[in-house]
Amino acid sequence: MPKSMRAVVKQRAAPGTAVCEVDIPDCGPQDVLVKVKVASVCGTDLHIYEWDPWAQGRVHPPLIPGHEFCGHVIAVGNEVTSVREGDFVSAEMHVPCGKCLQCRTGEAHICQHVRILGVDANGAFAEYVVIPESNIWKIDPAVLPEYASLLDPLGNAVHSVLSGDGVASKTVAITGCGPIGLFSIAVARACGAVRVIAIEVKESRRRIARQMKADLVLDPATDDVKQIVLDATGGAGVDVLLEMSGHPQAIHLGFSILRSGGRVSLLGIPSRPLEINLAEEIIFKGATVLGINGRLMYQTWYQMQALLKASHLDLHPVITDRLSLWEFDMAMQRMKSGEAGKILLYPDDIR
Amino acid sequence: MPKSMRAVVKQRAAPGTAVCEVDIPDCGPQDVLVKVKVASVCGTDLHIYEWDPWAQGRVHPPLIPGHEFCGHVIAVGNEVTSVREGDFVSAEMHVPCGKCLQCRTGEAHICQHVRILGVDANGAFAEYVVIPESNIWKIDPAVLPEYASLLDPLGNAVHSVLSGDGVASKTVAITGCGPIGLFSIAVARACGAVRVIAIEVKESRRRIARQMKADLVLDPATDDVKQIVLDATGGAGVDVLLEMSGHPQAIHLGFSILRSGGRVSLLGIPSRPLEINLAEEIIFKGATVLGINGRLMYQTWYQMQALLKASHLDLHPVITDRLSLWEFDMAMQRMKSGEAGKILLYPDDIR
Amino acid sequence: MPKSMRAVVKQRAAPGTAVCEVDIPDCGPQDVLVKVKVASVCGTDLHIYEWDPWAQGRVHPPLIPGHEFCGHVIAVGNEVTSVREGDFVSAEMHVPCGKCLQCRTGEAHICQHVRILGVDANGAFAEYVVIPESNIWKIDPAVLPEYASLLDPLGNAVHSVLSGDGVASKTVAITGCGPIGLFSIAVARACGAVRVIAIEVKESRRRIARQMKADLVLDPATDDVKQIVLDATGGAGVDVLLEMSGHPQAIHLGFSILRSGGRVSLLGIPSRPLEINLAEEIIFKGATVLGINGRLMYQTWYQMQALLKASHLDLHPVITDRLSLWEFDMAMQRMKSGEAGKILLYPDDIR
Amino acid sequence: MPKSMRAVVKQRAAPGTAVCEVDIPDCGPQDVLVKVKVASVCGTDLHIYEWDPWAQGRVHPPLIPGHEFCGHVIAVGNEVTSVREGDFVSAEMHVPCGKCLQCRTGEAHICQHVRILGVDANGAFAEYVVIPESNIWKIDPAVLPEYASLLDPLGNAVHSVLSGDGVASKTVAITGCGPIGLFSIAVARACGAVRVIAIEVKESRRRIARQMKADLVLDPATDDVKQIVLDATGGAGVDVLLEMSGHPQAIHLGFSILRSGGRVSLLGIPSRPLEINLAEEIIFKGATVLGINGRLMYQTWYQMQALLKASHLDLHPVITDRLSLWEFDMAMQRMKSGEAGKILLYPDDIR
Repeated sequence: MPKSMRAVVKQRAAPGTAVCEVDIPDCGPQDVLVKVKVASVCGTDLHIYEWDPWAQGRVHPPLIPGHEFCGHVIAVGNEVTSVREGDFVSAEMHVPCGKCLQCRTGEAHICQHVRILGVDANGAFAEYVVIPESNIWKIDPAVLPEYASLLDPLGNAVHSVLSGDGVASKTVAITGCGPIGLFSIAVARACGAVRVIAIEVKESRRRIARQMKADLVLDPATDDVKQIVLDATGGAGVDVLLEMSGHPQAIHLGFSILRSGGRVSLLGIPSRPLEINLAEEIIFKGATVLGINGRLMYQTWYQMQALLKASHLDLHPVITDRLSLWEFDMAMQRMKSGEAGKILLYPDDIR
Repeated sequence: MPKSMRAVVKQRAAPGTAVCEVDIPDCGPQDVLVKVKVASVCGTDLHIYEWDPWAQGRVHPPLIPGHEFCGHVIAVGNEVTSVREGDFVSAEMHVPCGKCLQCRTGEAHICQHVRILGVDANGAFAEYVVIPESNIWKIDPAVLPEYASLLDPLGNAVHSVLSGDGVASKTVAITGCGPIGLFSIAVARACGAVRVIAIEVKESRRRIARQMKADLVLDPATDDVKQIVLDATGGAGVDVLLEMSGHPQAIHLGFSILRSGGRVSLLGIPSRPLEINLAEEIIFKGATVLGINGRLMYQTWYQMQALLKASHLDLHPVITDRLSLWEFDMAMQRMKSGEAGKILLYPDDIR
Repeated sequence: MPKSMRAVVKQRAAPGTAVCEVDIPDCGPQDVLVKVKVASVCGTDLHIYEWDPWAQGRVHPPLIPGHEFCGHVIAVGNEVTSVREGDFVSAEMHVPCGKCLQCRTGEAHICQHVRILGVDANGAFAEYVVIPESNIWKIDPAVLPEYASLLDPLGNAVHSVLSGDGVASKTVAITGCGPIGLFSIAVARACGAVRVIAIEVKESRRRIARQMKADLVLDPATDDVKQIVLDATGGAGVDVLLEMSGHPQAIHLGFSILRSGGRVSLLGIPSRPLEINLAEEIIFKGATVLGINGRLMYQTWYQMQALLKASHLDLHPVITDRLSLWEFDMAMQRMKSGEAGKILLYPDDIR
Repeated sequence: MPKSMRAVVKQRAAPGTAVCEVDIPDCGPQDVLVKVKVASVCGTDLHIYEWDPWAQGRVHPPLIPGHEFCGHVIAVGNEVTSVREGDFVSAEMHVPCGKCLQCRTGEAHICQHVRILGVDANGAFAEYVVIPESNIWKIDPAVLPEYASLLDPLGNAVHSVLSGDGVASKTVAITGCGPIGLFSIAVARACGAVRVIAIEVKESRRRIARQMKADLVLDPATDDVKQIVLDATGGAGVDVLLEMSGHPQAIHLGFSILRSGGRVSLLGIPSRPLEINLAEEIIFKGATVLGINGRLMYQTWYQMQALLKASHLDLHPVITDRLSLWEFDMAMQRMKSGEAGKILLYPDDIR
């Protein structure tokens, strides 16, 4: 076993990262040491890389970012009982305190004292990563290994889709077709939505939305989205809105096509406060608006696993890039372009 | 417009029915007169035909039975506003009182004073039938006309599947593969179930269950159902049980394969009380058991319509027989044999 | 039976109303004619009186306003079966179309084509009012007659409190102590809230909030509401927020004291769009935000009746004024002052 | 610190227990050692004492029974962070595995591998008891210390009452007024039930039910319960049934007075399977039947604490006996008589 490893490190409170040789982290008695096979990139990683105001307020360098990954277990602490060397695993990277009201009432995903690996502590953009046993998720052999690093964002999609009273027999609109929005198309269909309408300004993403088999893919810049959706729903509007963009115009457009009594899952994070017409957009409609944060621990993980095992989800179109982890700057450029779907990063040469 | 019509009539408090010439029913100011195109047969019709104890206690001859049908509107009462001559329609045959607690709180399907057309008043086994406007369901042009007479039992299946918190990402067992059980296979799959296990003693029905694409079709007479299901669910048991048989052994088998915290929809009507081990079958498991009666008015109808419009349901394998309505005795013999799926009856020669 | 009656009439598209002699309205075959005993005043009536932009866009004079009342039945149409001359009644003044998706799925309170008596058609500020039988609510003899005209706004409170998963064992904050906010204090307590925190800028309303037995009554102008509430809830925040003010500052204050995973019922109507920090106020918290419109037909009415029959609600402190209906201008002045709670208006001299 | 302690011990697979001097249990690194102040007696303890068939199948002597208690922390293991010496505590005695589907999805109360302290491992009928930190519940200073040993059965009551959609504004019937049934009267009232009907054959328990402020207390041996309840509910029946007896006649009586669409919480454990008329008792009514096992970890505990802190529960009438723990045989005789409510046992002389 080597003592050191390569890692992508945010070294300073400034833009950029560096590839460094660092110590392999210690594996405590309740921890699991994983050799990373694939890591994937999230928008959060770009925020940290670019050192935007959010990152400046939250992140304390030096830090190894990265919170989406899979790999094989190399070692386990001496109190670990449910994970073994050789297991192929991913992990929930939100580490809840376990002792607050939310943690003790089945809502650990909104723990008051959550610590996110890859944001608040070292993460997975490295050859090795240490994870508490409680947060390890073993990959079922029936799940495509290809998808194993995608469970974190796929979980966001599953949590968004299945919150409230689900989507079976319903019409669903998705505003914003980044990776989570794209995953949501597949998830909504697999969970019984009868029509999925994807709304996205970028043509490259609309193309993937079509590959994900959205029933209707609309460009708000050129399509009369509201009219088309009302026509497609007998004038009523959609039953469910999954807001995945965080963009003010998309949010208003989404509310405008929601039927009275409909449900909204808000996942996209707006970069700043925005004007909402509470009366027209929420109150008169009797709408239900749900804030979606993370994934349920671990109900969402079981749901994902069940959908993946049954092969109800084809996620391939979303994977657009495969790079060496050590080409991290290039990955960041691809993210910045807005043209990438999901970028997979490989610490080893074998991809 | 003729004055009289042919109808299947239960004339006396005794087994059997007769084909008679009777008056075409009056169409009141809030009523709709429909020319029946197809009617289909339900187990209830056999109970009435055979004059079993339930029928003796409930039915008052003379009566035209039949509560599953579709047809075209011939005339409407002068207060009718939402239905027009020529519309292709089916109907909810449970006519609620509209004034009891249940009716006024969105639970008209369990109205305290419900009157069922085809049971408590004349129904659809005739050339014409009269229905209150409020109970008419217009068939969307995108729905296969073939399925239009099946909405009543299909609605039972949809209500069973979507009660509680749905089936998305779940494993579902169905005990009893009569037509509603068979429909439920398709409905559960369309609503996101990842695995549907059909359990049925009759080979002819198991064959249809396989055509309906159940993932696993088991014969309790020869298969070790409990072991197979536990193996298939990692030892936990199924998330949802749809009990469609009413048979004591099937009910106990169903409970034995339900996971702790699972949900049961009870639809099958046992012919008499049966011993239940409340402690083991319900209490220790923290199970949720739902009595399923009819279909929600009219949420279930909208759900069905959405699933049918999206072509998410293939019901053809369940339709096993097509007969003239005037061959009603033959239809009853087929029902009695237990070999029939759904039997469609045609008042006109054109089938 | 006289032919004409006195009524408060909005005669022109301009501020003000007049007391006029007008025809007693016709009672159709499905209608009920009620002699008004008490009517009460809602903020909506002031909007119509002052002819603000909302009223200009919605109301078509001439109109008799007024949608809160009680009285005795004087006559019923010949198709009416559930109401009789002499019955003491109030009414749900939202008249739904009965035929849209919402109406047919138990959500008539958000009917796409609702018509509100007293806003879109003649209401109750008159000696007589005509109501469709379906909308009549008979007052149970065990309910204090004093409260019979208050069921409409009390229903708003009950619907707000009991939406989502209720308030039993929970801490509830109410922002805005107009009459509905004040009613909500009593309703939340009666429905099992363990602590009710009322937040209101006007001293006269805070005084009533104390009489309604709020556990904590805070003035955001002088109290450090956030700190006090966090201290009172072990740092977690309140479980439920009932937003009854429509005021931007109160809305933000409300969200700031909501615990992660909490529920918000939005009832107060802001006069214009306002900036919301969706990320902090809703998404990261995993909050559930419910738009509250009207009252459930008729579940809320049954709930109200049950609470009132059991004497679980003391509404007296909210009733601050009793005037002759013909002193309507004075009632409007009292509303404008912001000092009034609920104003009862009497068409007859006997109060 | 002494090395040994007195305890009530089930020494052999036979009726009875003995008071013995045994070693004080070891306190592991994640454990908490508590000096028992009060323990209370549950029906389960009588089953173990009498060595009935259930006990013979489940319990492995030697065992210290007892799963209801409170006391002060004497020592904590070196990994314990949330509990300190001197804390006044009780505990959830169901120790879940933490790793099964139910544990990882917020349903640890129905863990597949649960171990119950006092049944499967040593419990609290002793001077000292060892509890895992995760299961310790600290008693809020605002809670009456008197009630601190009663949280386990009170939690059963709270879980029964608040399952499904709660009881606010509803009529609740309780069949069986043992301690949990009696607690449920107070809990249902505190959670907003408008009428609580207690049904019990034993006069001593009916007397306590009246002290708990049940609105109606009925004796099925002499009262026409069905008629009285239908009269009291306008012919509809009760909204909620809490079945706390496990007795076949009470169960049938309970179902017979449940309204269509009502909810049942089944908590009482029948001693053997019983005949249920699924059609009439559950299916036609569209009833929801919930198996209630234990208490939610730890939502129910927070709910209890909130209700107790707000002084919404007066439990005193249920406490009928206070004995020395070393008079355990006498306590068992009192239990057997059926005349006792809750029996408190004190290891020290000071009561």
